[in-house]
Formats: sequence, structure tokens, C-alpha cells
Amino acid sequence: MEFNDVIIEDTYAEGFPMWVARVIITAVTKEWAHRAATEATGFATSTIGCPCEAGIERFVPPAETPDGRPGFTILICCGKKALKEQVLERVSECVLTAPTTAVFNGRAGSEEVIPIKLHFFGDGYESKLEVDGIQCWSIPIMGGNFIVEEEIGAVKGVAGGNFLIMGDSQMSALVAAETAVGAIRSVPGCITPFPGGVVSSGSKVGSKKYKFMGASTNEKFCPTIREKVIDTEIPENVKAVYEIVIDGVDEASVKAAMKAGVQAACRVPGVIKITAGNYGGSLGPYKFFLKDCI
Amino acid sequence: MEFNDVIIEDTYAEGFPMWVARVIITAVTKEWAHRAATEATGFATSTIGCPCEAGIERFVPPAETPDGRPGFTILICCGKKALKEQVLERVSECVLTAPTTAVFNGRAGSEEVIPIKLHFFGDGYESKLEVDGIQCWSIPIMGGNFIVEEEIGAVKGVAGGNFLIMGDSQMSALVAAETAVGAIRSVPGCITPFPGGVVSSGSKVGSKKYKFMGASTNEKFCPTIREKVIDTEIPENVKAVYEIVIDGVDEASVKAAMKAGVQAACRVPGVIKITAGNYGGSLGPYKFFLKDCI
Amino acid sequence: MEFNDVIIEDTYAEGFPMWVARVIITAVTKEWAHRAATEATGFATSTIGCPCEAGIERFVPPAETPDGRPGFTILICCGKKALKEQVLERVSECVLTAPTTAVFNGRAGSEEVIPIKLHFFGDGYESKLEVDGIQCWSIPIMGGNFIVEEEIGAVKGVAGGNFLIMGDSQMSALVAAETAVGAIRSVPGCITPFPGGVVSSGSKVGSKKYKFMGASTNEKFCPTIREKVIDTEIPENVKAVYEIVIDGVDEASVKAAMKAGVQAACRVPGVIKITAGNYGGSLGPYKFFLKDCI
Amino acid sequence: MEFNDVIIEDTYAEGFPMWVARVIITAVTKEWAHRAATEATGFATSTIGCPCEAGIERFVPPAETPDGRPGFTILICCGKKALKEQVLERVSECVLTAPTTAVFNGRAGSEEVIPIKLHFFGDGYESKLEVDGIQCWSIPIMGGNFIVEEEIGAVKGVAGGNFLIMGDSQMSALVAAETAVGAIRSVPGCITPFPGGVVSSGSKVGSKKYKFMGASTNEKFCPTIREKVIDTEIPENVKAVYEIVIDGVDEASVKAAMKAGVQAACRVPGVIKITAGNYGGSLGPYKFFLKDCI
Repeated sequence: MEFNDVIIEDTYAEGFPMWVARVIITAVTKEWAHRAATEATGFATSTIGCPCEAGIERFVPPAETPDGRPGFTILICCGKKALKEQVLERVSECVLTAPTTAVFNGRAGSEEVIPIKLHFFGDGYESKLEVDGIQCWSIPIMGGNFIVEEEIGAVKGVAGGNFLIMGDSQMSALVAAETAVGAIRSVPGCITPFPGGVVSSGSKVGSKKYKFMGASTNEKFCPTIREKVIDTEIPENVKAVYEIVIDGVDEASVKAAMKAGVQAACRVPGVIKITAGNYGGSLGPYKFFLKDCI
Repeated sequence: MEFNDVIIEDTYAEGFPMWVARVIITAVTKEWAHRAATEATGFATSTIGCPCEAGIERFVPPAETPDGRPGFTILICCGKKALKEQVLERVSECVLTAPTTAVFNGRAGSEEVIPIKLHFFGDGYESKLEVDGIQCWSIPIMGGNFIVEEEIGAVKGVAGGNFLIMGDSQMSALVAAETAVGAIRSVPGCITPFPGGVVSSGSKVGSKKYKFMGASTNEKFCPTIREKVIDTEIPENVKAVYEIVIDGVDEASVKAAMKAGVQAACRVPGVIKITAGNYGGSLGPYKFFLKDCI
Repeated sequence: MEFNDVIIEDTYAEGFPMWVARVIITAVTKEWAHRAATEATGFATSTIGCPCEAGIERFVPPAETPDGRPGFTILICCGKKALKEQVLERVSECVLTAPTTAVFNGRAGSEEVIPIKLHFFGDGYESKLEVDGIQCWSIPIMGGNFIVEEEIGAVKGVAGGNFLIMGDSQMSALVAAETAVGAIRSVPGCITPFPGGVVSSGSKVGSKKYKFMGASTNEKFCPTIREKVIDTEIPENVKAVYEIVIDGVDEASVKAAMKAGVQAACRVPGVIKITAGNYGGSLGPYKFFLKDCI
Repeated sequence: MEFNDVIIEDTYAEGFPMWVARVIITAVTKEWAHRAATEATGFATSTIGCPCEAGIERFVPPAETPDGRPGFTILICCGKKALKEQVLERVSECVLTAPTTAVFNGRAGSEEVIPIKLHFFGDGYESKLEVDGIQCWSIPIMGGNFIVEEEIGAVKGVAGGNFLIMGDSQMSALVAAETAVGAIRSVPGCITPFPGGVVSSGSKVGSKKYKFMGASTNEKFCPTIREKVIDTEIPENVKAVYEIVIDGVDEASVKAAMKAGVQAACRVPGVIKITAGNYGGSLGPYKFFLKDCI
């Protein structure tokens, strides 16, 4: 298949279930909401080595937030048990501490409800108040009062959406990856948790040479050793590969994100081929076909 | 004391030892280096609830980095034992995975050396190479080759530098805090680990009402309950307080940061008073006097 | 009147007709489109001293642009005659010269059509091509091919929408102004042409003391000389005033922008009063009442 | 010649004299200073179609500005006569109007002194004051008081520094151009006036086909028509060319900027060749040899 003269491999990305909570963070300015959201979603690229996967979903204009202030929604994704701790810790340490912020339930779903009982921080000086019909707590802090809705809904979402961008130069693939991530930002319900949304170092399970390693470089997708790897997946004219990984609140969000991302990547000159990663269906129940992206 | 018509309380910030590692992250553009540095220093405001304290120290122009590319230095700060894990995990998950990055030892000191043996990720395809006289590893990945210097020096640095900004309105204090953080960015050797560099919710140890809480709001510094708190520290005309917390590689860096930050804050209209937090010398051996800041 | 405890004066902003052209600028990344749009809309705060008024209207995601790439729309506003020159010059000097850009008609209206015959720059190497059903020219340049739709529609729009934010401190008013501008960015069809969207130095026609001056400071709205000006409009507790000026493609856009801006400003602590500027109906036919903003 | 495996043509850039004024813009935050500086240097890529060439030179930290606030310096460059008008208009319309700004003489030189008599705007309410030993005026405005040093020094500087980056893909050349511009930002005394610092559409004088055109595309440097142009300068494997144009306060600044820029560009993978533009010495007296850049 082709799209805009780019080869689209007839394959699919394989997704699997992961729990997802959405938190709305508002602040006095867009910039301060963004700073809190950035801190709260850092060190969260992959559950392999980070305590969760997290990212900023989208900007929410003042007219759409509970308190009429600018905000951002973030998604926090991981196993059900770890999720409670991660939502609590990241809100406590990175949002409560940030100037002028308030926190509301982003209503990803109500399959699970995560309590974040921050009002105890108020040491008895806290009080209840209603914001736009929502029951919240107001906690006196140095900067004023911190407003928080204490129950954050969570849903069994979808992780592992992905596609790989192969370029005729490292910079072609890199700019295509950046553009794809930008396009995905306009799709509600999903995030790209890696740095700047892009994965540079794809891995395989285990290692052939170092038995103590749980994962190692996926040599079949490494362009610089193309000639040393018999079963390389790198076409002759490809100099670099970047992967976009997508987590979402449901299958439809991830599907829409893949479509937006693949099409945007194919608009960048020098992109040779798009493919996707799967484990033949052994990893998870969701299949995102590249043929549905074009 | 006064500086630019702002009251400077005659007190001091109390610092204590904390281990600090400095990592240089370079990339093909300043923007990509910044994205990796931001991810690697997220979820790291306070060791109370985060695995470490971390932040971006400064931009390093191409002429000053080992590989002639733009970069940022980050500081990762925590206890000696946790430091090894945090440096390794944050570099592995947030920098190795980021497009076009390389990692070098920022040479904070050599009291301790943290090994980050990423070359095993290469599964035998890795090779040694020298960059500007430094022994590194080159690891084939999807995006190209990842270059890494595998030993990161650490030093017993100083945490807990701080000052509090009191404003005649919440926005006066907020903008002053933002301006102070900006000024501190020009001082080498230190970071302000909280979101946007600012703390909005200072705490006291324990809680009077909720015995199960390890920390709770420091009501003496909460302007909205000033009239309910007998021993309030809030002057009558103060509407908000923001704190700047500083960690650094040594005493001199923190001292210089406090001076730059206090003076910058005092240039913002509406700042009433600057003070600082200490525990009477029981917490740590370093005293940063506000009288030395003006 | 009051909104969120802020006094809303029962007055109106007076708008007047001004010609408006909308240009779509796309590029390989959002960032490069933004750089071109920023350059093309600079030195364009007020037709009093600048050749036009201009600003970025909004981000256009890839799915909504003619060429499937990220883009921004800009509005260029001035008299009918000057508009032709300004659109041509700003596109020629600031967009054609910018890497990877393309230019499309933003279809503000078709009352007037501005020709920008850039294809002559191609010196005979240019060719016609269709993009998403739109007739364009493709002009070979150093960076590749520059795609341009050569007719830009213009409409008799509305200038002079405005409101003034009065704060209990300079920073309260400033942050409220910034937040108002942010809210207006979510309203299609309008721009805030001043630096960062905010006016700091409102003027009156002429000067009482210096007869050679066409305009001078509007002393009635200057807080620092409140006690020297008998007919001051500054309430006792107001320390600063910032004005938001709005230009739009039609009356409805300006009205919606004023509503979004006023409401957002009123969410910022320390805002005392909102008012608006008019000339009693002598300047223009449009009246934007503050009572319609709340 | 080669640098980092990139071919460096043995040629030179030809510079010519242009008058340059430097203005220091400070504000309450770095961000607001940047907004004013951006507006003041917009629509200023080339004196061919813009009223001047202008750009942001560098960030000035609070410790180095006259008023202890964060600031940026801008350079405004054009003919001697136009310079007076451009400095006055851009400061009046884009800095005086911007929130919290102050303006100081950046002391580019004293060969010429440009008066910007903004104090008349004060209509008699203005007053003199000294800032860090500098005689200034304080003008009451809506936002507070605007502080301005009314004499801006100018110097006969150097325009036309340049080099061209040729890449194996459009994105290789583009990222290299962006990286080069970033490196030049660390060199004091110069600017890159085009959008994002990069020129995409180099021109030749006149036109072969359209006699009414004063300039047209430089077909010899257009990769997409390489096969149609007999005397093409495009090597076979080059897909895009971007030019960096540099203006500076003196010869040494431009020379240092070219060196920093060329070396940074050569660090980006996919750059094939660096060359430079000259008119055989007929345009101006300054020669910047590429051999001095490596």
C-alpha cells in the first residue's frame, strides 16, 4: 500500500489493556497549568522502567473547565494497583505544590474510582465548596486556597498503539515523528508518553549475548548495523527509524490517533515506509491495522 | 533590612547535605535536548514523595559540549543509595529513548561514581569510541547510534536553600516567584526542583488534627486563614506567599542562587517582604543568611 | 454590574470598519509555521504608527489545512488600499522566505480579492498545480518548491473592540490581561494585535501641553498620577490598567472575543473593575456592550 | 576542505556596511521582554521589501541590565536615514505599548545618536529619573510608569554575512539550519533576521523572463529543477539548500557567528556541503572566508 508515495506495510499494531486515569489541572494562566502538567507527567515513558506512563492529553480552554480557568488534561496509565499510588503521588507532589492550580476529575470512566484525600493536608482548616456543581475541597496553602475534587475516575483503556517511521535520512524520520506527534495532539483521548512523543531505542525481549538483560536493542530495526544483521527489517535506503507509542482511554481514540499520526508523517519529505509492531496477537486483544490509517 | 523598598527579614535558610549527580544531555537541536531533559527531571519535586529531586541546570551551547552539539545539564539529587538507581533509570528510560541524544558525565564531582552500563543494551553490537578525548560507548538503536559516557560523577551537595516571597496580591507574589526562578537559571550549579521552580504549599512536620499525616499545611504561612491562626506569620497586607527551594552542587552555588533570586523578586512591584525557612540549626549545617543576599 | 465579584461598568466598546485578509500558512512542523506567522505579523500593533495591524488567529491542525500539514491563520488588517501592499509584502518577505511554508487563501470573505502574484518569482520555472481542489502555483526555490494560492480574499471587518482591566496591583492586572488574551485565542475570527495581545499605554488624541503631538498619554487612566489628575477615572484601590484591543472579521467574532476575554480576566484574583473605551458613537457604528459579556 | 566529513567550499561571504542600533528592552519577566522584542523585530527580514532588518540579539540576565530586570537586546539594521525612523517607530509602537517594559541604549556605538523623544507622550506629567547612573525619563501610562533612555547609539556595522547549507534531504538541511541559528544565538553582536533565522528562497538580481521583476529565484541553487538548469550549482545528491544571513555590529561579530554556525550545521547528519554567497567583491568590502570557519 502507499499513501502520499510512502510505502505502508500491511500489518498492525497490537494493543493491550492498561488502566487510565484522567486529571484536569487548571491554573491562573495556561503557562502555569502547563508547568504543573509537565512535572506531573515526567519520568513516565514506559512501565518497563518508570512507575507509570503519562502525558498531557490536551489544552482545555477556560470556557470548558469547571472553574472557568485555562487547563490541561493529563492521562496517567499503568496497572490498576499502581495507578492509585501514581495518581495520588503525582497530584500531591507536582500539582498541589504548583502555584494557583486546581484539580478536577477528568472522567475517563467510572469503572474504578481513585480517592485522593488531599483535604487532610488542610489539618482542619479545609472546607467543602461547590465548583460548577461539583463537590470539592478548599485547602488553605501558602499561595491561597487549593481546590480539589477528591475522586478521580479510571477506566480500563488501551496501551501499545504504535507505528514506525522509516526515513531516507535521520532528520527526515525525526521531523516526521515530531509532526506525527503534533497531529496526534489534536486527537482527544490519547497520549504519546515518550520524550517529545517519540521512541528512538526500540527493544526486544531479552538479549542474545547478555543473559542478565531483560531487554536489549532490537537489532533488526537498527539502520547502522543493517549489514551485520542477517534478518534486518531495514530497507536499503533507510537511515533511521522512529516509533510513536500511543496510550488511550479506549480503542477508538488509539485508532484515531494512529490515523492522524501516520497521515501527518507521510506529508514529510523523505519518509520511505511506515510499519507497526505486533507480537502476532500474543500480547493483547487490540489490532490497529495500518490499512485503516490511510 | 530593606532592598528596593522590600522588607528583608533578618533570618536564614537552613541547608543540609544531599548527593547530587550532573548529567549532560546533548541532541541534534536545543529543542530535542530540552525535551529529553524535561522528561528525565519530571516527577522530582521533593524527596518526600518523589523518588528524587531533579531539574534542568542550564543550557550548554555547542561550543562547550563534548560532541559540539547543543545540550542541557540536569542535576539529580537524593540520598546516596537512591541516587544510583535514579540516575540509571532516568537516563535509561528518558534519555536513551529520546531521539538523537547523547549522554556525558557532567563532572559534579568524583566523591562517588555512578555506573550506567547501558552498553549491554547493545547486545554485542555496541562498540567503544572516543568523543573529545572521553571514552564512550556507541550503541546501535533504531534512530542511529546512542553515545554514552558510562560513569557519572556525584558529589555531596547542598539541599534546602530557600526563601519566601510575600506579596500584596497573589499575582504580585506569583510573578515575583517566576522572575526569581528566571534569575536563578543564570547561576551555575543549582536547580529549583518544584513545578516552574515554585512551591505553593509549604508544609509542617506532622498534623495537629490528623495524627496519621506525616506532614500538613503550614498554617502560620497561609494568608487565607490569617485571622484564624493566632501565631500567624502573615503581615496584614500580604495576600500570598510563594517559596523558592534550591538544591546545588555546593554551598557557594546555593548562596549565589539565593542572592540572584531574592534581588530579582524584589524588583517586582507588590512584593512586601522576603523571609526564609529554618529549623534553628537542627536540620543541617548550612546557613544562608538573607542579609548576604542584598 | 458584577461578574465573579468584579465591577463591570455599564458601558461599551466602540468598533469601526477595517479591511481584513486572512492567510493560511502551513509548514512541515507547527513550529516552523509559527515562526513564519510570527515574522509576518510583527511590527503591526496599531495603524497609528505601523503599516497595518496583524496577528495570529489560530492553529489549524493538519486534518483541516489544504495540504494536510500543520498551519496557522493570520489576519492582516488596515485600510483597503494599504491592505494589498501589506498582504503582498508580508507574504513575500516573511513567508516565501521561510523554510517549508505554503500559503493559502483563508477565505475571510470575497468582497475584495488581493492578488499576490508570487509565481513571477519563479522566472519561468514555476508551474501550476492543484492542492485539495485549489488552483495553486509551485515555485522552485532553494529549499524545494513553494506552493501558493495567489488570490487572498478580504472582507470589511471590525476593528476597535476593547476592554480595560483594572487591578489592585500591577501584576494582578497584568496576569488578568495575559489570561484574557489566552481565552480570546480560542475564539475564531479575531486577533489581539498588540505585543502579547496587551496595551500598556493608552492614548488620547492630541496633547494639552505639546501641540505638535498627535497623541499623548491618557492621563485619566494613569494610576501613578491619579492624585494629580482632577478628572481621573482610576478608582482609589487600582494600581494598574491594561487594555485588550480586538480586531475581527465580523461583529460576531469581536463580540464573542470580548465575552471570552472579560470572563477570563474576572477569574484572576485582584481584578477590581472592567470598563471599555468609546467615543460616544462618533468613531464607528459598532457597539460592544460589557453587559453582554457576562 | 572538509569539516566533520562535510565538504566546505573554498569561497567567502561578502559583507557590506549597514547602520545598526542596539536597544535593550527589559520587563518584569523574561517572557514579557521577549514578547515586546519579538513584536519590535517583526516584518524585518530584508531591506529589499521590509523597512529594516531586525532581530533579537540575546537574553540579558537581571544582573546585567540597568534596572536589574530580565531583558533582551535587539538590533535594528538599515540605511542611516531610515534607521532613525525605524528605531523610533518600533520602540513607540511595539515597546512603549507593551506591559512593564523599559528601554535603554544598548550602546552599539556612538558614531550616530538616534533621539527617541518619547517623553513628549507624557503630556507634561513625565519626569526625569536616574537608573543605575543613566539619565532617563519616566512617563506615566496606564500600566504604571514607562522608563526610557532617549538616546540610542548607532554604528556602521556589517550586513550580508552568509553561508548555505546543502543537505541529502530537505529535513537534513532544515534541521542543520535550525541548529546553526541556535549556535549563532550564543555569539554576541549579531542577528539572523529571516524567519527562524533561515532563508529558504534565495534570489538573483532581476529576472530572465519577466523584465518587470527586480529579483527572482536563483535557479542555480534550486534542487527541484537541477536537471533543467545547465549551470546548476546543486551537487547530484543534494535535495535542499538553506541560507543563513547574518548582520552584526562589526566584522568580528559576523566572523564569529559564521564560524559557530558552520560548525554547528556540520554536526547534523545528512549535511553534504557548505558554501557561501558573494559577488566577487563588487558588493562590499568585507570577506568572510569559509576556511576561517573550520
